[in-house]
Amino acid sequence: MVKKVVIIGGGDAAFQLVEFGFTRIEGADKDIKITIIKKEKRGWVSVCGLPFVLQGLYRGIDDVEVKEVQSYIDRGIDVRTETTVESIDIENKSIKIVNGEELRYDYLVIATGGIPTIPPIKGAELGGVYALRNEDDAEKIMDAMSKAKNGVVIGAGIIGLQVAVAFQRAGIKTMVTKTRPVLLRSLLDPDMASIVQQRLEKMGVKFALGRKINAIKGSGVVKSVTIDGEEIPADIVEISTGVKPDVDLARKAGIVTGEKGGIVTDRFMHVNKGGRYINNIYALGDCVEVIDAMTYRPSLSQLASTILVQGKVISDNISGISSSSEPCLSPIITLIEDLQIGSVGVTSERASKYGIKIIVGKASKFTRARFTPGKKPITVKLIFDAYSERLIGGQIISEETVAERINELSLSIRKNELIKELCKRERCYDPSLTMVEDVIVTAAEDALSARH
Amino acid sequence: MVKKVVIIGGGDAAFQLVEFGFTRIEGADKDIKITIIKKEKRGWVSVCGLPFVLQGLYRGIDDVEVKEVQSYIDRGIDVRTETTVESIDIENKSIKIVNGEELRYDYLVIATGGIPTIPPIKGAELGGVYALRNEDDAEKIMDAMSKAKNGVVIGAGIIGLQVAVAFQRAGIKTMVTKTRPVLLRSLLDPDMASIVQQRLEKMGVKFALGRKINAIKGSGVVKSVTIDGEEIPADIVEISTGVKPDVDLARKAGIVTGEKGGIVTDRFMHVNKGGRYINNIYALGDCVEVIDAMTYRPSLSQLASTILVQGKVISDNISGISSSSEPCLSPIITLIEDLQIGSVGVTSERASKYGIKIIVGKASKFTRARFTPGKKPITVKLIFDAYSERLIGGQIISEETVAERINELSLSIRKNELIKELCKRERCYDPSLTMVEDVIVTAAEDALSARH
Repeated sequence: MVKKVVIIGGGDAAFQLVEFGFTRIEGADKDIKITIIKKEKRGWVSVCGLPFVLQGLYRGIDDVEVKEVQSYIDRGIDVRTETTVESIDIENKSIKIVNGEELRYDYLVIATGGIPTIPPIKGAELGGVYALRNEDDAEKIMDAMSKAKNGVVIGAGIIGLQVAVAFQRAGIKTMVTKTRPVLLRSLLDPDMASIVQQRLEKMGVKFALGRKINAIKGSGVVKSVTIDGEEIPADIVEISTGVKPDVDLARKAGIVTGEKGGIVTDRFMHVNKGGRYINNIYALGDCVEVIDAMTYRPSLSQLASTILVQGKVISDNISGISSSSEPCLSPIITLIEDLQIGSVGVTSERASKYGIKIIVGKASKFTRARFTPGKKPITVKLIFDAYSERLIGGQIISEETVAERINELSLSIRKNELIKELCKRERCYDPSLTMVEDVIVTAAEDALSARH
Repeated sequence: MVKKVVIIGGGDAAFQLVEFGFTRIEGADKDIKITIIKKEKRGWVSVCGLPFVLQGLYRGIDDVEVKEVQSYIDRGIDVRTETTVESIDIENKSIKIVNGEELRYDYLVIATGGIPTIPPIKGAELGGVYALRNEDDAEKIMDAMSKAKNGVVIGAGIIGLQVAVAFQRAGIKTMVTKTRPVLLRSLLDPDMASIVQQRLEKMGVKFALGRKINAIKGSGVVKSVTIDGEEIPADIVEISTGVKPDVDLARKAGIVTGEKGGIVTDRFMHVNKGGRYINNIYALGDCVEVIDAMTYRPSLSQLASTILVQGKVISDNISGISSSSEPCLSPIITLIEDLQIGSVGVTSERASKYGIKIIVGKASKFTRARFTPGKKPITVKLIFDAYSERLIGGQIISEETVAERINELSLSIRKNELIKELCKRERCYDPSLTMVEDVIVTAAEDALSARH
């Protein structure tokens, strides 16, 4: 009998579940019937691509629409756009659509994503103030950018800095402001973050970090942002201060959320109601909590890459293949200006917060042999647990090879690699592509000598 | 008391031992007195850089002289160039220099390297026939290239193909010939090697593979090469058919060599004489045998990257830090034309030779999101042990990110990663730098479905 799978939400979580989950399972297309219900009008849009649309890397939003709705309909997948779900009825295995029908499911997948957390700043509702979350936001921001002269970005995380780059490249004088004194705090230690800050300052971006944002001012539309009493002119403001799980629908149905505000799941990605995990309801993506692999505490891992793994676990289980998820390491890569910035595991601050004593190793070298033209500077910081001497965190900044190195460090952490193993592990070498002693090894040697 | 360390040979092995071995050990500069005895006249030359000197990537051989002799003398290291060692006297802990003094040592390191294996082809001794092994060879070849019109490369390994690229770029019509039918056979399966062949053919290089090389012809200088009876015009010929360990000196002293012709060492890199490992004599580099990590059989791993690890083991042990080497995986990266070619572990042919049943996974995708400009095609082939389902080999070809991916695969192999672990391991994602589902994961998924 064909299993009816209903997915609520039409972001990366829904479409990755289909593309990288069900699609790879032999016979899944005959065994299951998928319905996707989403609020937005487009098909599978790469939300991660939107900041680069603003930067002009792509020709427009159409470029980051990976697949259109019709292509799913052609494959027999029922994608209902501009449709909102009103409620979930767990008892009756059905959902109710706003102003519409009731839909029965055999398996339900909650992929409702996240919503921007807008801090309570006076004037945040003014025209010209945006939060970049989906393709509709991107369209509005692009439109506003074409007329703007002065921009303020509130928040100094990945999205905020990517938007700041977009503003600055578009000729908008841009200031990045944040109440905390450092940027990219969840990814980088301050010494590493300063490399990014310097690069952005070089392109003209101003920073007001560790300052109080008093108000956004204007009448109808934004005119300025008051920071620590100082009035900064702004005709465009972007607020990127994080995303919280969108769990209203789930909570209304009695589904349990946890200390980080996300839906709680077991390792099979089943949701929980009244202390019991429900065999036919799954959740994934920005709306769920994960278990952090370094602290074993609940955490949010709102990354497209986390979804990939969760989607495979869910599609396997629905298809009858037992499959569970591991605690999350959440390796991160991002491009800010021409710097590739990568991070995995704990930062020094996070280690300190959890009482983990650390040994740090750091090195700055080149990606390729010193005598090779085109070599790029690269800085690596490694964080080891002082007791076990195993790798628990890594941060890398360069103009090339960072993503792949973060993947290697993720595996190192996952497989409990020790300082001394890293120092003596074989790595491939060709002067046109690498250095004889790689920067990661030099950083590990630095930690080794710090240990003595 | 200061320990006197004498190193015979002045290639990568000797200088890496100093630079990445002793230099990092606190106090080593005060505790030991190093003498390096070498035949050539320059300091530390990157032999791996020489093919790129021929290709014009660097301005000349001076560029790949990483450090000059004087810089070592300034540091108190006694580097004796253009000096040949006549014999080793293990009993008396001394060596004798040709026409010269006797030198006493506390620790001896044999780093005599390798010598090209020239196949017994008639005419191989003619003028215009070269083998690229050291900087002196490179100088002669560069000089000859400036006048040559037609070139033949005998051998289709890394060096041979890199020289072919240099010839072709210099406007020399080039043919690569080999008695075996495939190129890069120690690194790649034929399906992967064909990607490289096609790229080289596109730039004009001709191939005569699986053909018999009858003779090199000419009077005094080369005029042609006869291949399967056909006369191919050639005013320059390069022979790259491998390197054998240079062990004459060691053998004369009674030091044991093994089935692959290299010096046998224990895990601490001690050489063996009469069934006993000698505590104060070490060997490393192209002159030694290693233990292969996949077959546990003796093997040659004539790579600069292997030396790095061996040098650390030797410097640790001489400095009193117990340190041993692991069986070698020998990850390889090379740049041929604009293709980065990487390989680690066993190829299909090698697995078959050792009776290992395999599961293969393969995928061709892009390095970055489909919608990202500048993305490069990438092909990955993964080889898993059919019984344990763990990774035992990997081959990658692309124009970017190959070296770092090979390092990751090396760690996967080293840490016994399984197909299903690879499929569900977290990887970092940003559309401007990676794909949501990386090509390595897609290849692993391919193997997973081949397994069912």
